[in-house]
Amino acid sequence: MLGSGRRRLLSTLLQVQKRPCQPCRNMRLVQFQAPHLEEPHVGLESGIGGGVVDLNTFDPALPKTMVQFLERGETALSVARRALAAQLPLIPRSQVTFLAPVTRPDKVICVGLNYADHCQEQNVRVPKNPIIFSKFSSSIVGPYDSIILPPESKEVDWEVEMAVVIGKKGKHIKATDVMAYVAGFTVAHDVSARDWQMRNGKQWLLGKTFDTFCPLGPALVTKDTIADPHNLKISCRVNGEIVQSSNTNQMVFKTEDLIAWVSQFVTLYPGDILLTGTPPGVGMFRKPPVFLKKGDEVQCEIEELGVIINKVV
Amino acid sequence: MLGSGRRRLLSTLLQVQKRPCQPCRNMRLVQFQAPHLEEPHVGLESGIGGGVVDLNTFDPALPKTMVQFLERGETALSVARRALAAQLPLIPRSQVTFLAPVTRPDKVICVGLNYADHCQEQNVRVPKNPIIFSKFSSSIVGPYDSIILPPESKEVDWEVEMAVVIGKKGKHIKATDVMAYVAGFTVAHDVSARDWQMRNGKQWLLGKTFDTFCPLGPALVTKDTIADPHNLKISCRVNGEIVQSSNTNQMVFKTEDLIAWVSQFVTLYPGDILLTGTPPGVGMFRKPPVFLKKGDEVQCEIEELGVIINKVV
Repeated sequence: MLGSGRRRLLSTLLQVQKRPCQPCRNMRLVQFQAPHLEEPHVGLESGIGGGVVDLNTFDPALPKTMVQFLERGETALSVARRALAAQLPLIPRSQVTFLAPVTRPDKVICVGLNYADHCQEQNVRVPKNPIIFSKFSSSIVGPYDSIILPPESKEVDWEVEMAVVIGKKGKHIKATDVMAYVAGFTVAHDVSARDWQMRNGKQWLLGKTFDTFCPLGPALVTKDTIADPHNLKISCRVNGEIVQSSNTNQMVFKTEDLIAWVSQFVTLYPGDILLTGTPPGVGMFRKPPVFLKKGDEVQCEIEELGVIINKVV
Repeated sequence: MLGSGRRRLLSTLLQVQKRPCQPCRNMRLVQFQAPHLEEPHVGLESGIGGGVVDLNTFDPALPKTMVQFLERGETALSVARRALAAQLPLIPRSQVTFLAPVTRPDKVICVGLNYADHCQEQNVRVPKNPIIFSKFSSSIVGPYDSIILPPESKEVDWEVEMAVVIGKKGKHIKATDVMAYVAGFTVAHDVSARDWQMRNGKQWLLGKTFDTFCPLGPALVTKDTIADPHNLKISCRVNGEIVQSSNTNQMVFKTEDLIAWVSQFVTLYPGDILLTGTPPGVGMFRKPPVFLKKGDEVQCEIEELGVIINKVV
């Protein structure tokens, strides 16, 4: 069972690598570990499925965590741009372990009911304002890490989501100014224990924040290198079968609205993550409902951003 | 108006200083800033209302943030114990600005409805299990900082709470083992915008997490220097008038139950904060309801732990 799961993961990764390198001039910031490194470094993924440029080797003055990298703002980004333009040696992907592109952010902000079709599948109205909940940062894992099925839940469900990463501190940000505060975008999996989401005084937090319930990655793709974040195919596959398939153009509240809304309440900091909601096709509204089980493999993919592949253990 | 508020704050602080130095051998860890320092340091408050010992001067190898200090575990605590035993020079309180004893924790975990009387005042049953919600770390401010009244809310309410600070990483912690994972206790104010707590799809998060909605401090009092954290007088005063007055022995779920419960879901890390719920007397259940307004001064006090004094601006 485990053997076949591993083969499937390997074959998926190989398929990913064979794809043509879509807009290769995307700037794809990653956090990674490699056998020759003492601690994780910040790097550049050379296109979806490609090798990695070590930015900390390119410029030893750069910080080694993405949160600190983003705190440096344009100074750090300009170094990354120089590295992208240069033909630097790549660490082969086979030698690299990818961490989530951001770890230990101040906040993981989530949005409920942000695809009209997803509201429809559960017979609820499209909300007038974004519904905001959260995960703890401790739920974040890397793009190919395992999702640990907690014995406490019998109803663990999938939700592919586009995540926005904040690049600059801000409060009361106007919708028209929002993109100046955004560093870029990545793929997120908002793993959800439906039973716990509905217990706990109907506060969704516990069901959303078990350890490993927030796979992220593989890369933080900077905003200036994506044609249009609100026109990207988004899909989720469980054991190869497509279960969610939509486009980010179906989002009710776009990035601009969401950040403007949230920044009324809280100051946003570099590295803060905002998950923008999931399209229809989750397991709980299937007839009969379907939930994740040990051995399943979930692939969450967003055009231009990449794919994260997480095995359920 | 501002002048009288400042006088009140000063006179309160002076009263606090005149109190007899209750169990002075409490170890009272603080984060503070002083004019001669380039960045905040970790220190020891010499009793409630006393001056501060600079632990980073005493041992320059100690980290300068409480989260990192706690990550060092017993090594750091033993240095603090040596400093406490020595007769070290104090920085006068008048030269010190206190930060929250913990800043940028991975989590601020909150518990709803954890005093039986507080359930009674709102006509709801005592929950069978703890109800868990959260604040973002960005809501934390220092023990004497201002609470900023957001223009977005008309119903900002007070809630004094005892906060537990985690000292050691743990998951699935048994109730009987919990105290080995606790660093100590501090005073928290779970400021709550009732209107927003009940909007947002009834997810409490937004109403609880406006900037400045989590004053903490003044000190993290280590567990071994408190006789019994579940037998401490707890009170809240607004403009000098007692509005909440109870004892932590009234908590439905004690620290042991709460940490055991939460650690089923998430790994706890050094510096994580858990607010343990508020006793009766909040503003929203008064007849008529009373909410905080500009110029108010809120004092949250817990026996042995100290008092935090926050002006509403």
